[in-house]
Amino acid sequence: MSNSRKQLKLGALLHGVGGNPAMWRHPDTLPDASVNIELYKRWVRKAEEGKLDLIFIADGLYINEKSIPHFQNRFEPLTLLSALASASTNIGLVATLSTSYSEPFTVARQFASLDMLSGGRAGWNIVTSPLEGSALNYGKKEHPEHDLRYRIATEYLQVTRGLWDSWEDDAFVRDKASGVFFDPAKVHPLNHEGEFFSVKGPLNIARSKQGQPVIFQAGASEVGKNYAAKEADAIFTGHETIEDAIAFYQDVKSRAVAFGRSADEVLVFPGIGPIVGATEEEAERKYQEVAGLVTIDTALNYLGRFFEHHDFSQYALDEPFPELGELGRNSFQSGTDKIKKDAKERGLTLRQVALQAATPRSTFIGTPERVADLLEEWFVRGAADGFMLAEAVPNGLSDFVDLVVPILQRRGLFRTAYESGTLRGNLGLPIPENRYAKANAPI
Amino acid sequence: MSNSRKQLKLGALLHGVGGNPAMWRHPDTLPDASVNIELYKRWVRKAEEGKLDLIFIADGLYINEKSIPHFQNRFEPLTLLSALASASTNIGLVATLSTSYSEPFTVARQFASLDMLSGGRAGWNIVTSPLEGSALNYGKKEHPEHDLRYRIATEYLQVTRGLWDSWEDDAFVRDKASGVFFDPAKVHPLNHEGEFFSVKGPLNIARSKQGQPVIFQAGASEVGKNYAAKEADAIFTGHETIEDAIAFYQDVKSRAVAFGRSADEVLVFPGIGPIVGATEEEAERKYQEVAGLVTIDTALNYLGRFFEHHDFSQYALDEPFPELGELGRNSFQSGTDKIKKDAKERGLTLRQVALQAATPRSTFIGTPERVADLLEEWFVRGAADGFMLAEAVPNGLSDFVDLVVPILQRRGLFRTAYESGTLRGNLGLPIPENRYAKANAPI
Repeated sequence: MSNSRKQLKLGALLHGVGGNPAMWRHPDTLPDASVNIELYKRWVRKAEEGKLDLIFIADGLYINEKSIPHFQNRFEPLTLLSALASASTNIGLVATLSTSYSEPFTVARQFASLDMLSGGRAGWNIVTSPLEGSALNYGKKEHPEHDLRYRIATEYLQVTRGLWDSWEDDAFVRDKASGVFFDPAKVHPLNHEGEFFSVKGPLNIARSKQGQPVIFQAGASEVGKNYAAKEADAIFTGHETIEDAIAFYQDVKSRAVAFGRSADEVLVFPGIGPIVGATEEEAERKYQEVAGLVTIDTALNYLGRFFEHHDFSQYALDEPFPELGELGRNSFQSGTDKIKKDAKERGLTLRQVALQAATPRSTFIGTPERVADLLEEWFVRGAADGFMLAEAVPNGLSDFVDLVVPILQRRGLFRTAYESGTLRGNLGLPIPENRYAKANAPI
Repeated sequence: MSNSRKQLKLGALLHGVGGNPAMWRHPDTLPDASVNIELYKRWVRKAEEGKLDLIFIADGLYINEKSIPHFQNRFEPLTLLSALASASTNIGLVATLSTSYSEPFTVARQFASLDMLSGGRAGWNIVTSPLEGSALNYGKKEHPEHDLRYRIATEYLQVTRGLWDSWEDDAFVRDKASGVFFDPAKVHPLNHEGEFFSVKGPLNIARSKQGQPVIFQAGASEVGKNYAAKEADAIFTGHETIEDAIAFYQDVKSRAVAFGRSADEVLVFPGIGPIVGATEEEAERKYQEVAGLVTIDTALNYLGRFFEHHDFSQYALDEPFPELGELGRNSFQSGTDKIKKDAKERGLTLRQVALQAATPRSTFIGTPERVADLLEEWFVRGAADGFMLAEAVPNGLSDFVDLVVPILQRRGLFRTAYESGTLRGNLGLPIPENRYAKANAPI
């Protein structure tokens, strides 16, 4: 098959011991994974062996006694990815960071620094912090409400992008003979004065080879989808069926077009948890092994986190899912709306909802050929530009790289060598022109 | 000579192309050094080859067109040191970070994460941001005045240390059979409510092998010296003569004792810029080569930065140093006080002051034996517990490791192998006991 066929993109979501809140109990799991740097280094090398586009680190700014075990104790994303930059050469490094509890000058600097030290491989997954408790760790009276968080995020990204363009690409002359280090006409203070931020600039670091870090976003509420369609280079989403995924894909692409962008400028990555076995039965057995580790108490805690750590143990397990009113709408809005809607439409009990949340049965389960078929179908039918692979079972990433990637490569659906040393280069995204160089360009 | 002799400590100050604002023009300097990650990796490997205790990264949060060339474009310290952690095994990693423009929850997390991923090698050089312009990058109406900055820093460090103790060392049980991931009795929210900060906790990462990152401080004002003597594990200072250094050493050690600490609990590191040559003449020639690169305009700009970017070009060069009143007292207070005092007492002209500031002649200059003699004298006479080595000439660190370290080792003054994998272990500092474990200890 021709190499000129359009190819899908792949990212690996590395978050310690996997999304399942009890997977740390599996015999094949290192239970200290979330703070085991040698393990992360092995993962990034495996991902790079599979020519994956990127690794992705999730994050959160608040824990309590009911948080997922490996969230209690985990690396901070920017420091972790900087360490992993030195253990890899081509793969993209995407860190989650909240715009609700940070300063744009510092965040612009740290991402630019990661981008520079990795040779242009940084990405930023912008979140607005769903957890209300975050406010308590940052001396705030209250957690900003959902739509306000997105207004803050919008201005925040404007500031950050402005700071990233502080220096034109040819600003640093470094002429030893004349003693001219930089051209003062090519450095630009930002002088931003907005509703939420006032930032003078310039930033004290230049642009990397890829111009600016790649922007990821995972908003799925109305406000979130518009933000992603307008601002993001890539969207991280999640769907159980191909129909839902296609509908979402078309929705955000058309929103992007409505914002004056090309549909190709924003890549859609559904998150999936592939489970691969030599036979269908082996794959199913792997899923059941992991699902069986989750007690109903663990599942209720896990579910509670999406609803501002609501205590679900107060309800009868086998009665219909309780009426929760507005609860959860200021945290994971799109997620909690969906849980409530599903429960109502399908008449689910609390037990069913909790177990479904904590141990969802992957759509992408089966033999390597079967998983590759599903990926191809989603890709070809316009449900995805690529996929974000979560570790649904122990060694899930490793199995995927060893068994599924070669099939995708044979079918011409995935690269056999990196096209580029930058994340933008591998994702096929353009290098954003510096706004000032653009303004000065001859007509 | 016996290995049981008390040994000195050594750190390397890595800041791009050296302290001299024109050293980037030297033929042997890579002028992009401040954003060249491969060069930093070579430096850290060289420092580790010399069994140095630590590398140290300075920082600043504001630039303008008169800033030192390599400050215009440099890595952010925490991301840089995280990347270097993966390129080294034993050396300490000390990052400068300001308490005036950051959030303690985030900073505690990032240092704890660097500490965890480096296996217990992190250090934090606490600064309060001398540059007034920093306020403009962080949406603040004004830069907090000097003593207020230290009050903020004091509470900030209390919060950070409290967060670092969130988890007792045996809190993470991770018992797969019982499903107990952590012992809830061994996690401690902070619930801090203070004058400047309100932080609930707990932190979402455990303590590293060294318990907590090592605290460095460089304050030399009265307020700064008290802060350092009370709070710091190590003090970074600077003196031209051994007499001044001994006086400072005795001053801060006695302040530490007055605060109820042992004099050994706070290590004093004068910063020095060793210049080594095969002969005295060669060393002197190296100094002159570098000094000769600094034009008087560059020197005036460099001097101006310490005085809130004051424009010194308005004064006659060969007249007595101008009267500046309070200028500079809210930025680098101890440094600007000293410059004014010296100029007055010694009757210096502006030209002399500017060139002295920009190209100070190192006290530690000469053959390797001569430099080793001086280090030994400072150490033995009680002027220093160790030294922070700045790059006064190109390849200064490399020359020091190749030529001076072996002499210090032969004299039994410096280690020939690392004692420990942690920074505290190599510096001979105790692991701070977790405050909660201590409180619960049986009497």
